[in-house]
Amino acid sequence: MPKQLIDFSVNLNPFGTLPSIKGNWVNWIDIIEDYPDPDGYRLIQAIVAREQICQSRILLGNGGAELITLLANFLTKKRIGIVQPTFIEYEKMCRAFQCDIEHIVLQEGKWHDLSAVYPIIKDIDALFLCHPNNPTGITYNKETLRKLIEQCEQEQCYLIIDEAFYDFAEEFESAVSYVSAHQYVIVIRSLTKMYSIAGLRLGYMMGPKEVISSLKDIQPHWSINSIALEAGIHCLDSEAFVMKTRKYIANERKKMQVALEEMGFNVSKSDVNYLLIRDDTLHNQEPIIRYLLQKGIVPRHTENYRGLNGKWIRVAIKKEKENELLLKALQSWKRRN
Amino acid sequence: MPKQLIDFSVNLNPFGTLPSIKGNWVNWIDIIEDYPDPDGYRLIQAIVAREQICQSRILLGNGGAELITLLANFLTKKRIGIVQPTFIEYEKMCRAFQCDIEHIVLQEGKWHDLSAVYPIIKDIDALFLCHPNNPTGITYNKETLRKLIEQCEQEQCYLIIDEAFYDFAEEFESAVSYVSAHQYVIVIRSLTKMYSIAGLRLGYMMGPKEVISSLKDIQPHWSINSIALEAGIHCLDSEAFVMKTRKYIANERKKMQVALEEMGFNVSKSDVNYLLIRDDTLHNQEPIIRYLLQKGIVPRHTENYRGLNGKWIRVAIKKEKENELLLKALQSWKRRN
Repeated sequence: MPKQLIDFSVNLNPFGTLPSIKGNWVNWIDIIEDYPDPDGYRLIQAIVAREQICQSRILLGNGGAELITLLANFLTKKRIGIVQPTFIEYEKMCRAFQCDIEHIVLQEGKWHDLSAVYPIIKDIDALFLCHPNNPTGITYNKETLRKLIEQCEQEQCYLIIDEAFYDFAEEFESAVSYVSAHQYVIVIRSLTKMYSIAGLRLGYMMGPKEVISSLKDIQPHWSINSIALEAGIHCLDSEAFVMKTRKYIANERKKMQVALEEMGFNVSKSDVNYLLIRDDTLHNQEPIIRYLLQKGIVPRHTENYRGLNGKWIRVAIKKEKENELLLKALQSWKRRN
Repeated sequence: MPKQLIDFSVNLNPFGTLPSIKGNWVNWIDIIEDYPDPDGYRLIQAIVAREQICQSRILLGNGGAELITLLANFLTKKRIGIVQPTFIEYEKMCRAFQCDIEHIVLQEGKWHDLSAVYPIIKDIDALFLCHPNNPTGITYNKETLRKLIEQCEQEQCYLIIDEAFYDFAEEFESAVSYVSAHQYVIVIRSLTKMYSIAGLRLGYMMGPKEVISSLKDIQPHWSINSIALEAGIHCLDSEAFVMKTRKYIANERKKMQVALEEMGFNVSKSDVNYLLIRDDTLHNQEPIIRYLLQKGIVPRHTENYRGLNGKWIRVAIKKEKENELLLKALQSWKRRN
């Protein structure tokens, strides 16, 4: 095994934590002693200002994972649709709360097309959609999103859109603008990816007032820790950092997509900070994963993603130097095989 | 209003955060970027070593409040007994999960006596007991605890003992030693009080394997943040700090109990870092609360504690100098009234 490993399996900002979080860190030792503000008042106000949404439609979460769990709990024993392939937590938590799950597995080559989803909506109580999608990295256009929202609204089906990676996409149609005027649109955001604070846990949700109010009732008191609350305020006030990241990621991703296709790999049309690749000469990509590990590169397998089942590999977009090491390793794989 | 307020309403260690947490703080900026260990392996091992309990009987929590919430969720719609007066979160969360609640309100002067609880056990699925009790500060003796455990075991009623303040008591009969050999004993511990890390959120629970396993299924992924996991390891390795705190608190509390009784106040027989006081010449203690606030002292009212209803005031035991200011203010109240 190589001495140093480069982790391409985790989709965090390669620039690391926000400089102002690093700069303020030493002062935050003083706030760990007191209980956190259970309402997260200051952070909520920052979200109100940024999203132009009323505070009774906002819920803070101990990471996006807590928000997914609260929603699954709220939807106990209901009929849930999940657009696949996608993040595995939706299924895991819906199962834990005994939901009746309908998987809508989009076929390869049709990942941008949600027409298989529409006929299902009338039969379910809620639909999970990851947008931009994890693990494919693809985004849906305005028309597709609008149509889905209208259909869900008409059928009284909660549409839960997880926008955890939205701020990595250059052009993106968020569902947030639909929340205030709709009864069934719910948007989950994470602050742990763009700002590399996965260890602190922080996310927020926007949705109908009655849903937010019901979730607040079943959320543990003081669920968001004091440090996450402070860090979150810095995150929402760092547009330049986000712009720089987004531009850098887009540039690196495009370079990688071109290079990988030139090498003969099949590459997903990702708009964010990770992408799927496959060597079409192999059914299961496990030999490539083993080869990369020998070179000190850790990719993410796709064995547990419905509709992928190991037929792809997910890799993060990192800094230029690291991305070049990945490309070099994949080039040498192609030469040998 | 006075310029500076002394907060006697919060029951945290007056010595503040553990020195080794302060000392390591600057290094922890590096661990906020990565996801926390979802299993909290190192902290769990430290608890196994300390409590001599098998790891499948231990669950970490994002503060004691998350553990109470998970238990209430697990007990959805069941019949729950709550020994009152007590911490309000048990009732709040059991209500949120539609439990059928039976309040067993212990009468004044009988706070050490659980005989009113025994006849109820056969009719309920779980019983919440806060031990040492918050807000009275009283503890139960070995015989009382053993009898309660036996009765709950016999009636297949979960006995949920919240030992959040156990480490402030000089002599204390914990229920932990009963967990491994019993099917219905559950103990909740908090690390936020003794170690003054309320802002970080950390607690743990010990109980039957099937209960722990069920709660794990419905707990959000990565629920305990990286900093809390690190801090927790330091907490469990600081016996000297705990001993020093316990001795100091006991000494201060005894001085306060004697002084307050000499002034003519009625004082609860607390064994921990807070106590109840009342001026028997008043029915509701609100005038004293207003008087103390004018002097810059913030006590805790008891309006929302069942069985107390404002007839007492709760104050924390703090450092000697602050405690003396409280005594001085109460002395001057007594002289005027």
